[in-house]
Amino acid sequence: MQHLSPLQIRQQCRSGSFSGNTSGLAPGFVQANMAILPKAYAADFLQFCHFNPKPCPLLGMATAPGAFDMPALAAELDIRTDLPKYRIFQQGQLSAEVSDVRSYWRDDLVTFLIGCSFSFEEALLADGLEIRNITEQVNVPMYRTNLSCTPAGVFHGGMVVSMRPMTPANAIRAIQICSRFPQVHGAPVHFGNPEAIGISDISRPDFGDAVSIKPGEVPVFWACGVTPQVAIANAKLDFCITHSPGHMLLTDLKNSQLSVF
Amino acid sequence: MQHLSPLQIRQQCRSGSFSGNTSGLAPGFVQANMAILPKAYAADFLQFCHFNPKPCPLLGMATAPGAFDMPALAAELDIRTDLPKYRIFQQGQLSAEVSDVRSYWRDDLVTFLIGCSFSFEEALLADGLEIRNITEQVNVPMYRTNLSCTPAGVFHGGMVVSMRPMTPANAIRAIQICSRFPQVHGAPVHFGNPEAIGISDISRPDFGDAVSIKPGEVPVFWACGVTPQVAIANAKLDFCITHSPGHMLLTDLKNSQLSVF
Repeated sequence: MQHLSPLQIRQQCRSGSFSGNTSGLAPGFVQANMAILPKAYAADFLQFCHFNPKPCPLLGMATAPGAFDMPALAAELDIRTDLPKYRIFQQGQLSAEVSDVRSYWRDDLVTFLIGCSFSFEEALLADGLEIRNITEQVNVPMYRTNLSCTPAGVFHGGMVVSMRPMTPANAIRAIQICSRFPQVHGAPVHFGNPEAIGISDISRPDFGDAVSIKPGEVPVFWACGVTPQVAIANAKLDFCITHSPGHMLLTDLKNSQLSVF
Repeated sequence: MQHLSPLQIRQQCRSGSFSGNTSGLAPGFVQANMAILPKAYAADFLQFCHFNPKPCPLLGMATAPGAFDMPALAAELDIRTDLPKYRIFQQGQLSAEVSDVRSYWRDDLVTFLIGCSFSFEEALLADGLEIRNITEQVNVPMYRTNLSCTPAGVFHGGMVVSMRPMTPANAIRAIQICSRFPQVHGAPVHFGNPEAIGISDISRPDFGDAVSIKPGEVPVFWACGVTPQVAIANAKLDFCITHSPGHMLLTDLKNSQLSVF
């Protein structure tokens, strides 16, 4: 799979021959979180992203309700089939996990794509920094915090953060690198004392897996793309579709194209 | 004094009507650390700066031994008279503090100008960050560390760091801002645990004054321009001239011109 282009991977998703985790696929290309909401909620959600750009950096938005392409981000895209796995939520509850959402499609659905930490992790690795969750082959640990997002309409909730332990010198380098990438969460939001942002037990993440923190390292916290998912859950929408965790949309955009300098 | 241009301040130094501390003078303009060494040591010192750019960021160097102007950095400059106060070192010992070094001048002396933290402090203040040593109206605390500089010829020694306490969120912002200014020490080199870089007692700086560290703050450490002074002292040169601490050269360069992006 790893040698395939983003378009080829999307085509394999569409044909049903691939429905797996996208971590490590199509190195160098941007992978995106996805949320598809009824038009009635789209303006609120767009405002929520605008108000909270660090956890909800908007990479793209469908040009019109019902549109399932996004030519600026992915050639020949059919958003209804080109992700490996989707989650369907009805009345605020997960109701199905599927690899094709054409039977759920409606003309009032608006698609949003949101930046993902895979992009900045690649930039950190390319610079020689170690990323503990990759070394330990687990999901990145994620935590609910007491940092609140600015609410917009029905969307509200706390910021969720991901954590990667680093030495202070490496954390400083990571801050420099991630500052180049505001569309994939940008610079960290906190480092050091977890309790300062409302995390009572660093060894028990709310999402993902715990990783080891070595002597001389501090936990470094980034705003996380799970934040908009929590805000969507809090909104108890009658209907929405998201990607399944780790099963992202492969776009044709290069990670390097997201760098602002 | 504060409304005077850098040229006017240099002229007041030259005429003998000003010999004070330059902190806060000519806001927006770059102030520089200065070292004047015999030609016999100049190549080694240049190499020391090249090997250790964070503590010794070279802003300028005289075009030839004996030259006392530097047209790219300061109009009508006479480096022998245009600083408020100088220190003369002979056989490695401080032998005089004077406001005019023309009587000490030699045709083999080479002038070096090195970036100063005043430039990045201004950028931090402009962004709304508090700088504790400014708030408490004391000299910034500076510490010897176990971070070693790469030696060059007769020049060697540990890195000296300055420390400013900040919340983690403000420290992240400060790292972003200072990364724009590699010619004035750039990003911090460490934050958090002082012992990790060989500082045993944060309340007892080796140079400057202690400042308070509030709950929720961490000490943030920058490479410091005292480092080359320590390396010069270690070299026990038969002769050299430096500025007196806090009595810097006012250049015509704007701080904003040092920003690399």
